[in-house]
Amino acid sequence: MTTLGITNGVVLQPDLSVSKSDVLIDQSSGEIIDVDPEIGMSGDRQLDATDSLVIPGLINAHTHVAMTLLRGYADDKPLETWLREDIWPAEAELTAEDVRAGARLGMAEMIRSGTAGFADMYFHVPAIGDAVEAAGMRARLGHGIITVGKTDAEIESDVEEGIRVARKLGSERVSTALMPHSLTTVTETTLTTVIERAREMDVPVHSHVSETTAEVEPIIEERDVRPVEYARSCGHLQPEDFIAHAVHIDTEEIERLADTGTGVVHCPASNMKLASGMAPVQAMLDAGVTVGLGTDGVASNNDLDMFDEIRDAAMIGKLAAEDASALAAPDVVRMATQGSADCVGFESGRIESGAPADLAVLSLDAPHLTPAHDLVSHLAYAATGSDVRHTICDGQILMRERELLTIDEATAREEATKRAEELIARAEA
Amino acid sequence: MTTLGITNGVVLQPDLSVSKSDVLIDQSSGEIIDVDPEIGMSGDRQLDATDSLVIPGLINAHTHVAMTLLRGYADDKPLETWLREDIWPAEAELTAEDVRAGARLGMAEMIRSGTAGFADMYFHVPAIGDAVEAAGMRARLGHGIITVGKTDAEIESDVEEGIRVARKLGSERVSTALMPHSLTTVTETTLTTVIERAREMDVPVHSHVSETTAEVEPIIEERDVRPVEYARSCGHLQPEDFIAHAVHIDTEEIERLADTGTGVVHCPASNMKLASGMAPVQAMLDAGVTVGLGTDGVASNNDLDMFDEIRDAAMIGKLAAEDASALAAPDVVRMATQGSADCVGFESGRIESGAPADLAVLSLDAPHLTPAHDLVSHLAYAATGSDVRHTICDGQILMRERELLTIDEATAREEATKRAEELIARAEA
Ligand SMILES: [Zn+2]
Ligand SMILES: [Zn+2]
Repeated sequence: MTTLGITNGVVLQPDLSVSKSDVLIDQSSGEIIDVDPEIGMSGDRQLDATDSLVIPGLINAHTHVAMTLLRGYADDKPLETWLREDIWPAEAELTAEDVRAGARLGMAEMIRSGTAGFADMYFHVPAIGDAVEAAGMRARLGHGIITVGKTDAEIESDVEEGIRVARKLGSERVSTALMPHSLTTVTETTLTTVIERAREMDVPVHSHVSETTAEVEPIIEERDVRPVEYARSCGHLQPEDFIAHAVHIDTEEIERLADTGTGVVHCPASNMKLASGMAPVQAMLDAGVTVGLGTDGVASNNDLDMFDEIRDAAMIGKLAAEDASALAAPDVVRMATQGSADCVGFESGRIESGAPADLAVLSLDAPHLTPAHDLVSHLAYAATGSDVRHTICDGQILMRERELLTIDEATAREEATKRAEELIARAEA
Repeated sequence: MTTLGITNGVVLQPDLSVSKSDVLIDQSSGEIIDVDPEIGMSGDRQLDATDSLVIPGLINAHTHVAMTLLRGYADDKPLETWLREDIWPAEAELTAEDVRAGARLGMAEMIRSGTAGFADMYFHVPAIGDAVEAAGMRARLGHGIITVGKTDAEIESDVEEGIRVARKLGSERVSTALMPHSLTTVTETTLTTVIERAREMDVPVHSHVSETTAEVEPIIEERDVRPVEYARSCGHLQPEDFIAHAVHIDTEEIERLADTGTGVVHCPASNMKLASGMAPVQAMLDAGVTVGLGTDGVASNNDLDMFDEIRDAAMIGKLAAEDASALAAPDVVRMATQGSADCVGFESGRIESGAPADLAVLSLDAPHLTPAHDLVSHLAYAATGSDVRHTICDGQILMRERELLTIDEATAREEATKRAEELIARAEA
C-alpha cells in the first residue's frame, strides 16, 4: 500500500460544511482511507493544500467530449438549423482518430478545471475508452444509438454497435451504458429493444429527454401521453437510468422521475445557448429527484468547465423559480458532486473514508476568492476551473500545480487543431 | 515620447474582425499610435503577445467596487430582504478606509481579468478616487444620492456630498457624474434638482432604472406613466447619461432610450442572481439603444470578471429572446468594449490610432481555447479572466504576465480580509 496525504487544506465535507483537515489516500486501492486534521505528514507522499479548498472531483454527468473539435465552429444558431447544417455534416466525417484526439483535448480541459469523472454519449466509443484509460479519468461511456434517417439494416448495426461497445468496455474506471439518443430520434421498437438488452446486461440506460418543446409535442400528438410517461412505458426510467435535460416537464413528470429514482442531468449552459428553455430544477429538488450537472457538448457551451455549470445552475435556477433563494450555493455544489455521482452511478462525489479518491484542490489565494465569508458561496459563484491546483482520480494525481501528468497538453492541442481543420475542410467540401 | 510595442499577437479590430498585428503605444500621452503588422520590435519597450489575442481593455460600466468586502456574505436571498437585513446594515458601518480597501481588492480582481475601466456608484468616493489614481485604472465615479428614510437636512447634505465629490474629482483617468440612486429611492424634487445641477456642471447622470417590477409599479400607480417617461420628465436621459439594468421596460420605453441616446448598462449576472428578470437586450440593440455591460456589486454576482458578464449576456439574451441567434458572440463582445465605453463616456473600447491605450492581452495557449475556429466566439463563450496575461490602461502596464504592477496583491487581500471581518462584527453587534 502506497499512501498519499493531501495536507493543510480545508475540506468540503459530505454535508457541505467546510473544515480544516488532511485527507489520506491509498493509492493502490484508489480509496480515501481517512479524513482527519491529525494526518499531517504521515502519508508516503504529500500533496500540498495550504490556503486551498479540497473538494470532491467534479463529475460532468452529460457530455459528448470529442465535440471539442467543433468548439466555436457554429454558434448562435437555433438547435435544428445548427444540427442539420453544421454539426451533423461535420460529425459524419469524424474518424476514430479524430474522436480520440477530441476526447484527449476535452479531458485535458476537464482535468485542468477539477473534473475527475464524466458520462459520455458519442460514436467511436472504443477510441474514447482508450483515451480515458490513458488519461486516468473515471467515465461511463456509451454509443449513441439513433434511428432517424436510417434503413432497418443500419439501425440493426447501430444497436449492435451500442451493445458491442457496452460489452467490450469495462474496467476499474471505465463503465458503460446503453444510450438510445432521445425519445424522438429513436423509434419505439428500437427504444424498447435497447432497453430490454440493457436490463439483461445489467447496465443503465442514458438518453436525452424533453430538451426542447419540439421533442415534446410530437410525442403528445402521436401517443397522447407526455414524454416521461412514454419513456417509462418503453421500460426506461429505472433507478440506475439517467436522462439529460428534462427542460420541458410538468409536475406529474417530476413526480414520476422522483418515484422511479431516475437521475436527471441538468445542462444549464446548453439550455441557455440553444434557447431551449429553463428546466424546473428547484421543483425537481423539492420533489426529491436526483439532479446532477453536465456541460453537454462543447459546441453548445463552449467549454467543459463545471464551475461555469455550477454557477449557471444557480443563476438560471433562480430565474426559473422567480425566487432568489432557489438553487442556493450548497444545492448547486451538491449537484456537481453527489448529484452527478448518483445520476451516473459512481461511488465518488463525497470526501469520506472508503469513497473513491477522486478529488480537486482549489487555491483560495486570489482576489476573486477574498474575503472568505463563505467558501461554498465561492465555489458556486466566484471560483473558476483555473483556480484548481491539483486533480486526483482513483488515487492517482492527474494534475499537480496545474501541470498535467497523464496528457501531453501541447501535443493534445496541436493534434486537435490539425484534425479539426481537416475535419471542417472535409465537411465543407 | 516613450513607446511600447505589443508584438506578435492577433488584434481584435473595431469591426470585431481579428487579424495578426502589432500595436504601438505612446506611453507619454497614453494613446495608441499605430496598429500594424509591420511595427515589429520598433517600440522602446516590448510586451509579448505571441499566441495571444489583443483586445480593448474591458469596461465594467456599472459596479459598486468596494462591495468586494461583502463577497459571499449573504447569498440566495430576495432583493428586498437581502438589502434590508444584510447589505444596508453592513454598509452603514463602512468607513472611508474600508471603502478604500474594498476598492483596491476589487481593482486587483478587475485588472487580473482584463478590465481597464469602470463606472462606480458608492459612498466615501474620494477614497475610491485615491485608490483608482494609485491603481492606474480609468473610472467614472459618483456618490450614490439616496433620500429614502432621510430627513430634509440629511437629504441636503447627501446632495451636497454628491456635488462636492463631482467637483473635487477629475483627472486624466478619473471622471465623475451625479448619481441619484434610483427613481424610487430618490424623491422627485431631489431627482430634478440633482439633474439640473448635473447639467450646470456638465457631468452625466447615472442611476438604477427598472431593475425589478417592485420599482415599476409604484411609479405607474402614482404618476400614471412608466419609469422611463418619468425619468425623462425629471430631465434625465440625455445622451451623456447612462442607466443601469432596464430589465422591466416595454417597447415604447426602448424607443425612448434609443431616441434620447441614453446608455443602458446590462447587468445579467446580478439580474439572474437576484431573480430580477431578463432584460430585453436584443430588442434594445435592434432599436439602436447603446448597451454596455456591468457586473453590478460583487454581493450580487459574486465576482468582477467581465468575461462572465459577456457570456451571461449571450446566454440570458438568447433565453429572453427565445432565439438562439440573439445576442451573438460579436454583439456581446462589442457590449463589453465599445458599448460600455459609449455608455460611460470613455474614448476607449476600440483598438485604433488615437484611441486611449487601454488593452488586455489574452493567452490562447489553453485547451479550452482550442481549436481556433473563431476567436470572437472564444471571447464570448470560452475565455475567462484568468486567461489574461497583460492589462494596460492609459499606456501604462497594470499587469504583466499575471503579476500586478500597481497593487500589492497580498497586502490588498490581507487588508480586505481583516476589514471585512471587523465590518461584519460591527454590523452584527
Ligand atoms: Zn447531449
Ligand atoms: Zn447597482
